[in-house]
Amino acid sequence: MKIALITIGNELLSGFTVDTNAAWIGNQVIQSGGNIIWHQTIGDSLEEIHASLNQIPIGIKTIIITGGLGPTHDDVTAHALYEFADDTPVFDEDYWTFLQEKLSKRNLKLPEINRNQAMKPGNGKIIPNPMGSARGLHYCVNGQTIIALPGVPGEMKEMMTATILPWIKSQSSQRLIVKTIRTTGIMESGLAEKMGDIVNTIDKNIKIAFLPQFTGVDIRVSGTDKTVVDEKVNEINSHVSKYIYGQDKDRLEEIIGQMLKEKKLTLTTAESCTGGLVGHRLTNIPGSSEHYLGGIISYSNKVKENNLGVDKSTLEQFGAVSSETAKEMAENVRSKLNSDLGLSITGIAGPGGGTDEKPVGLTYIALADGKNTRVKEFRFLSDRMLNKNASAQTALNMVRLYLLNE
Amino acid sequence: MKIALITIGNELLSGFTVDTNAAWIGNQVIQSGGNIIWHQTIGDSLEEIHASLNQIPIGIKTIIITGGLGPTHDDVTAHALYEFADDTPVFDEDYWTFLQEKLSKRNLKLPEINRNQAMKPGNGKIIPNPMGSARGLHYCVNGQTIIALPGVPGEMKEMMTATILPWIKSQSSQRLIVKTIRTTGIMESGLAEKMGDIVNTIDKNIKIAFLPQFTGVDIRVSGTDKTVVDEKVNEINSHVSKYIYGQDKDRLEEIIGQMLKEKKLTLTTAESCTGGLVGHRLTNIPGSSEHYLGGIISYSNKVKENNLGVDKSTLEQFGAVSSETAKEMAENVRSKLNSDLGLSITGIAGPGGGTDEKPVGLTYIALADGKNTRVKEFRFLSDRMLNKNASAQTALNMVRLYLLNE
Repeated sequence: MKIALITIGNELLSGFTVDTNAAWIGNQVIQSGGNIIWHQTIGDSLEEIHASLNQIPIGIKTIIITGGLGPTHDDVTAHALYEFADDTPVFDEDYWTFLQEKLSKRNLKLPEINRNQAMKPGNGKIIPNPMGSARGLHYCVNGQTIIALPGVPGEMKEMMTATILPWIKSQSSQRLIVKTIRTTGIMESGLAEKMGDIVNTIDKNIKIAFLPQFTGVDIRVSGTDKTVVDEKVNEINSHVSKYIYGQDKDRLEEIIGQMLKEKKLTLTTAESCTGGLVGHRLTNIPGSSEHYLGGIISYSNKVKENNLGVDKSTLEQFGAVSSETAKEMAENVRSKLNSDLGLSITGIAGPGGGTDEKPVGLTYIALADGKNTRVKEFRFLSDRMLNKNASAQTALNMVRLYLLNE
Repeated sequence: MKIALITIGNELLSGFTVDTNAAWIGNQVIQSGGNIIWHQTIGDSLEEIHASLNQIPIGIKTIIITGGLGPTHDDVTAHALYEFADDTPVFDEDYWTFLQEKLSKRNLKLPEINRNQAMKPGNGKIIPNPMGSARGLHYCVNGQTIIALPGVPGEMKEMMTATILPWIKSQSSQRLIVKTIRTTGIMESGLAEKMGDIVNTIDKNIKIAFLPQFTGVDIRVSGTDKTVVDEKVNEINSHVSKYIYGQDKDRLEEIIGQMLKEKKLTLTTAESCTGGLVGHRLTNIPGSSEHYLGGIISYSNKVKENNLGVDKSTLEQFGAVSSETAKEMAENVRSKLNSDLGLSITGIAGPGGGTDEKPVGLTYIALADGKNTRVKEFRFLSDRMLNKNASAQTALNMVRLYLLNE
């Protein structure tokens, strides 16, 4: 099912708002059996909406419009559609009463300006909005189905999910199955090498895409046949399993949380260059207090020495960014905070602070379990934020690999 | 200057990539004197590019195209433009040699597939790409200026900034001046009330918009006359100065860093519910090691008690989320880590852990300076991430307000 999308709003054209609705709709539609093949963004004006509707490529029978359904004078989508469909809207007394009662419960009075939100089509249909007052419109004009939704992301998503996507599914014989395999600790080229012939599939029914980020590479497998997609995912799994931490929306900190919980182990952190990012990520997961006890952000050398107990001589002899300091940090946070595992990160995040011998990006990560302490050296990038993110991800991955082998 | 934008890419239509280029271009163009008034997204196909170029509304003489300039078979923008301009491209021997030499320095060989990146227009012009190998194209066809740039955000931005935006400025008599005033600690309605008549300006040359987020409200002032915009900004400043922490891209942690540096004061943190987020934000700023010494992430009660030294009886009598615990956390992190100021946060981030008496969102923030300790109670929201972000922002703002009054 070919679909055209029109997103309406001067704020989108001026770039003050990023059009995340379009991406969300495109992605949901493709997994429901549709395809956005044409997308236009226009300003809040009757003429532009008319012009846009008249430009829809021949062969597209479904049009989704978002934006311009609110109560203000900028919101002209409904008017444009009434005109386009040659329809006369009628006042919906019941809905007006409903809106008034809803607000009076909160001791508020509904302004008269909202009256246009109680208009409903004469010929077309209403699409309910469970979250807000601006309802959607559904018209059939000259063999085309036109759906108009509000631009507020939460409301649009709810209405798409409840009404529009099920309808697209019902109209489509096949839909795209999309699986994402999430990897970290290996570059795109390394993955491609290990995956060998799997990448060079000549099967037109399956598509494999690498999506590299600085914290890892996602492998996206898509196709219309679920069995073929699942087979391909399994094949990839068997070749690069070590680097895979999850699927689809899985987060590394979530996976680690589950593993720690299963093994009944606790974790603490000693962070220098990441400044608390690892603790922040671990505690983004509900229930993380079961396995993450806390940590010490030892940003200054004094805190490393006085509060984390790193030997003064270690700091003097090897420096704060060294394998030796990382080792003591991990061991000491483990013993001082009384956890099963202690994780430490120390590095030069940049932009300043680098030398020829110890350049920006040099990072040591250590993991102590009371018997052994592993320390690894990494050379990341020149950008501070990329270094913090790469360090945190690599540190979390070191915990994952440790737990995998335990 | 009216401008049409065409962004090309199947990944944009399928929503696997969010079109952030369009927003960036729209925003830069508007501040250079242009206006994107029409934007279309299409797939990687010759026919669609032709159709799109033919749909540009009458009166638009400038067209910017991004995407589809790479070396793969999907990248068809250059071909479409050669056809549209009725031009025959020529092979650029110099550029091909340049590309080969560039790669051979890295011990790499340039694949033959890249030969099309060394083609250049017969009639049109080349737009240099300082960051990558795909150069831009510049054509004049039937009185229209067509500019094609690669879709890689870094390359596109560099080329826009170096070549296209200066040209737009040179063609435009007036451009939009945009100033953003960043506030926190007050809601949109509160700001509007305090600003009074400033908001209801009837001057058509100036526009004021509120952009509320959970961490604060940005006030955007825009207009074509710099003096008028500056006057309005000053007027707003004088009404709500207490809530303003910066302008435009300023970050709260950056402002605090400057203030601490000026006053030669150091800060440490004791974080419970924010789990390290405050430390992370403070250390995002280069040079933060001058004023931020570190902190203790006291996520579990044991760490609060054993490592941060919160009295066992305080925890038992008042609970971990209490004004009393927050007070001790701030005072103890200050004295243990030996800083001028100690900041603490303890709260119920949710989704679990709330009770009737202490619901999700209840948060205590304390700031100790060795003489006094301020503690404040807040009731945030029901969402974990929103609570963490609101808590961190409010805690940082408490430091800002303290330093402002010192």
